[in-house]
Amino acid sequence: MVKRSGAYGGILHEVVEHNGVLYLAGVVAEDPKMDVAAQMRDITRQIDEVLAANGSSKDHLLTALIFITDMKQKPAMNEVWKAWLAPKHLPTRATIGVADLDGYMLEVVVTAAKP
Amino acid sequence: MVKRSGAYGGILHEVVEHNGVLYLAGVVAEDPKMDVAAQMRDITRQIDEVLAANGSSKDHLLTALIFITDMKQKPAMNEVWKAWLAPKHLPTRATIGVADLDGYMLEVVVTAAKP
Amino acid sequence: MVKRSGAYGGILHEVVEHNGVLYLAGVVAEDPKMDVAAQMRDITRQIDEVLAANGSSKDHLLTALIFITDMKQKPAMNEVWKAWLAPKHLPTRATIGVADLDGYMLEVVVTAAKP
Repeated sequence: MVKRSGAYGGILHEVVEHNGVLYLAGVVAEDPKMDVAAQMRDITRQIDEVLAANGSSKDHLLTALIFITDMKQKPAMNEVWKAWLAPKHLPTRATIGVADLDGYMLEVVVTAAKP
Repeated sequence: MVKRSGAYGGILHEVVEHNGVLYLAGVVAEDPKMDVAAQMRDITRQIDEVLAANGSSKDHLLTALIFITDMKQKPAMNEVWKAWLAPKHLPTRATIGVADLDGYMLEVVVTAAKP
Repeated sequence: MVKRSGAYGGILHEVVEHNGVLYLAGVVAEDPKMDVAAQMRDITRQIDEVLAANGSSKDHLLTALIFITDMKQKPAMNEVWKAWLAPKHLPTRATIGVADLDGYMLEVVVTAAKP
């Protein structure tokens, strides 16, 4: 069974659930003019909301792909990340420096278990 | 059980099936000189073929990662995407602007459920 | 059930296991000054170790995302890849040319089945 929620723009669903895994679409901040820490805080807030709406939470994250347009901002992004997640519940992660995120500094793609 | 099909170049399988999920290799167009819409149409045609050959279809897509070398081409790519997929069956998605796809403008990595 | 191992820097776990799938964090070489072949050999050695420590092996790889900062180095990277993996057990794969891997030439993100 596949369950989809959060249809957006005729392009994607924010969440697709299958076999106990929640797959989330890439999340960007609400405002691309925010600094990188504010963008990450806004992204983590959105992920919390989406996971809560789908019966999970940040303690059940499995994986994260973080795309960033300026690798020098990684330490500032990491501070927000570390403040957000409990050490025992950290997912796997890769941080990839990319050319263009349509004006944003960060885009985060996560998966989570549905407990 | 893991089922692999579509061996390519001693480098990858086009599809790996495990626990009801089909993981597809990155798909590029047959000809890198096509414009972005034609590349996307060719990619979606290939995905349709691979999914059909493995007992699934585009209505069962779970996730998509779209890598694009020129973010200004995203709207043209999106038109093909929207014409391809039914709104109720859209997967999650992230579109990432990257430096180099070995000559191509697009590469698409999807997963799908096997119903 | 989610099982996490290899906590690193308060930022990630090296492996998260869920529903028979091992998700690995992005792996880079120990020394960014190595040439691309040496970086890939070091990455594959680390993946072998992590999979062995978690009850799996390279014969059970499902997917690979390879991020590379210089696509011209792809053939040299591929030679190491092909020497590493048995043709019958190749995963799916996508190789994406990206702007910045924090000084490294390669970063590899894989998943594997736990047999």
